[in-house]
Amino acid sequence: MKETKHVVIIGAGFGGLQAVKKLAKDKSIRITLIDRSNHHLFQPLLYQVASAVLSPADIAIPIRSLMHKKKNVTVLMDTVTEIDKENKQIILDDKRISYDYLILAAGAKTGYFGHNDWMKYTLGLKTLFDALRIRNLILKSFEKAENHPESAKELMKYIIIGGGPTGVELAGSLAELSHSIINNDFRNIDTRKSEIILIEGGADLIPSFNRELSIYAKKKLEKRNVRVMLNSRVMNIEDNKVFLKTSEGEKTLTANIIIWAAGVEAVNLNNTFGLPEDKQKRLIVNRYCSFDEYPEIYAIGDSVNFRDEDGKSLPGVSAVAMQQGRYAASAIRDLIKGKELKPFKYTDKGSMATIGRKDAVADIFGIKFTGFIGWLMWLGLHLFYQVGFKNKVSILITWMWSYLTFGASARLIQDTPGKEELESMLYSLKK
Amino acid sequence: MKETKHVVIIGAGFGGLQAVKKLAKDKSIRITLIDRSNHHLFQPLLYQVASAVLSPADIAIPIRSLMHKKKNVTVLMDTVTEIDKENKQIILDDKRISYDYLILAAGAKTGYFGHNDWMKYTLGLKTLFDALRIRNLILKSFEKAENHPESAKELMKYIIIGGGPTGVELAGSLAELSHSIINNDFRNIDTRKSEIILIEGGADLIPSFNRELSIYAKKKLEKRNVRVMLNSRVMNIEDNKVFLKTSEGEKTLTANIIIWAAGVEAVNLNNTFGLPEDKQKRLIVNRYCSFDEYPEIYAIGDSVNFRDEDGKSLPGVSAVAMQQGRYAASAIRDLIKGKELKPFKYTDKGSMATIGRKDAVADIFGIKFTGFIGWLMWLGLHLFYQVGFKNKVSILITWMWSYLTFGASARLIQDTPGKEELESMLYSLKK
Repeated sequence: MKETKHVVIIGAGFGGLQAVKKLAKDKSIRITLIDRSNHHLFQPLLYQVASAVLSPADIAIPIRSLMHKKKNVTVLMDTVTEIDKENKQIILDDKRISYDYLILAAGAKTGYFGHNDWMKYTLGLKTLFDALRIRNLILKSFEKAENHPESAKELMKYIIIGGGPTGVELAGSLAELSHSIINNDFRNIDTRKSEIILIEGGADLIPSFNRELSIYAKKKLEKRNVRVMLNSRVMNIEDNKVFLKTSEGEKTLTANIIIWAAGVEAVNLNNTFGLPEDKQKRLIVNRYCSFDEYPEIYAIGDSVNFRDEDGKSLPGVSAVAMQQGRYAASAIRDLIKGKELKPFKYTDKGSMATIGRKDAVADIFGIKFTGFIGWLMWLGLHLFYQVGFKNKVSILITWMWSYLTFGASARLIQDTPGKEELESMLYSLKK
Repeated sequence: MKETKHVVIIGAGFGGLQAVKKLAKDKSIRITLIDRSNHHLFQPLLYQVASAVLSPADIAIPIRSLMHKKKNVTVLMDTVTEIDKENKQIILDDKRISYDYLILAAGAKTGYFGHNDWMKYTLGLKTLFDALRIRNLILKSFEKAENHPESAKELMKYIIIGGGPTGVELAGSLAELSHSIINNDFRNIDTRKSEIILIEGGADLIPSFNRELSIYAKKKLEKRNVRVMLNSRVMNIEDNKVFLKTSEGEKTLTANIIIWAAGVEAVNLNNTFGLPEDKQKRLIVNRYCSFDEYPEIYAIGDSVNFRDEDGKSLPGVSAVAMQQGRYAASAIRDLIKGKELKPFKYTDKGSMATIGRKDAVADIFGIKFTGFIGWLMWLGLHLFYQVGFKNKVSILITWMWSYLTFGASARLIQDTPGKEELESMLYSLKK
């Protein structure tokens, strides 16, 4: 009987899960899947947790329950501190694990292009924690306005920096929240008077889309009372202040809440390689999603920079990560069998973004969809890709419900820790 | 036309909501409902959030959406710091609100009978935040055990202090979690080997129930591998240690997680009265849920000590709070009309507690139910009392789902704030 090979996969995102799925079929392979958190997060819907439509559990599913039946997969919730490439070992806080093959799929986090001081004044949107913080602060701003109508105008002013899909979708659903969902819940203020400003440095929103769709998205967001500012570069951010350089010169905007959706960078794990990185700290991999000097190491998804034939980097979207995950898995199985490898090739099926109720833009195989049809396609595809049946049911119900009642189901401000609680929290962090 | 009277209600728990409901019908009354949080919490199911069966949004519903259509009700999310009884004003952080009538329904919080130093070493279960902390730490203890099987025994040791309904229900559902839900998800440990110890100072579990049911509950919990210790008084608590005085002398137990379900006390708001309190800081009210010197002030629910004819204090359960809420509302309407008041009378419809899947004890109008029938009654009643239709649907699905699949749907460890996040959290607390 042939010896078992051990594959270690770091990260249970879209890429990592696809890789496990494919590898686990080969019972002669033993797999260890490591993630910092205990759940797979369906990031494309994270903004709906922020806008109080969905609950965390709707878009997060325990990795263990996904691997439940795959007996050749061991799941560890842990953080990888380093990689000993020469001895083929990954290093955790307090132990080492040897691998025959390694797949790096650690993903990306909010990036500030070196301006880490802006982090303090803005809210990112990459983790559940981020999403819940945004939700809490947005909902609290309305509560505070109801208590102090005199300062409602300032309190209900929100800036979203970054006109990519995340920024566009978040702006759309925050506009919906304030303009058509909670507007009858208050007695002293009119939440429809809230101001949502979406800032994009380039000439178009969702630049990765076909230009027509970018223009459509802008028009529709403006119809939903979102103020869209294009060609506006962020020069600096301070407490409740954003300093811009626009085509009409410099501008300073104020807001109660500033959300940063302008950039991501690979998680720092990658720094432990002595390999070339791009300015977003993404690993530059070869045509095989691997490294010439370490063919047993694969790197996929948002944490890598893969350049196709014509030198163009692939975008940091789930489709790329999933295809690379499946590729890495079969590449490893081929290596074990001693087969010849073909380079990775990405097939772009298209992209889509929602602007709000019954409205989305989709660019599928070059065909453009907008409005309600676009929205239906968006809904269908997201439900289809949602991992875990229970989540599908629960999300569908939640959506149908908020669609019928115009209500945001998850509109709760979670108790934030007070001093006493923070103390015992720090205390339990030790555990 | 007669002048509008202003009723201020503090607390949107079971008592407060019943009072609003009844008062709002009279359009000549203006109501202001104040709560620290933006949601009504269905506390009887809080333990199911702790045991990862339900999500916070399942048992919390925004107060605003409940008051949505009641135009004579204003909801404020705020904290009452004091009450100026002479000028009939409540004092918030930064403003005063005048009232004609006041209903105090601020509820209870975890109480340590003066041993507040125990708070640091134990976890309470009164808020959503508490429940999520318990969930996070329990789930993390299993994750850590999977990484370090050598110390699994210590890591999977849990103590629950307090044999009332909360303690019993939590013990039952934690036993279920470790023994039949997640036991196949791990490769290096057997979660069924986890140890759950339930400690009660008195001679019986759920002492408020008929003795037969107490005995039944104990037997069933022990069958589910919960170690029940009766007649065991907690003398002291230290880091992972509980010191007991039992019938067989003094004992010291160790555990990874210690949960405190042994006592509650009224929230401190009440201290602003110069009125007699019992040792649980509960206000001692007269036969009218009011105060002889302040007949315009009513106090109801967990935050008061109401003694019936034979001097027995009513228990701190939702049924009492709801009946007192309705009573206070009609009493105020009678006062306005100048009618004579009848003293408050509590009708005990009975009580119920679940021990786990398909098993509960119910004591309804003196008739005792156990096992599956008891469980069905428990389920029906809780769904019936759940506020908000969406919640009912979502809970029903979640329950049906976990019932069919033996899975805990909300089994996710929510990202806990790191240093950076805690910093910007403290920062946003200012907002």
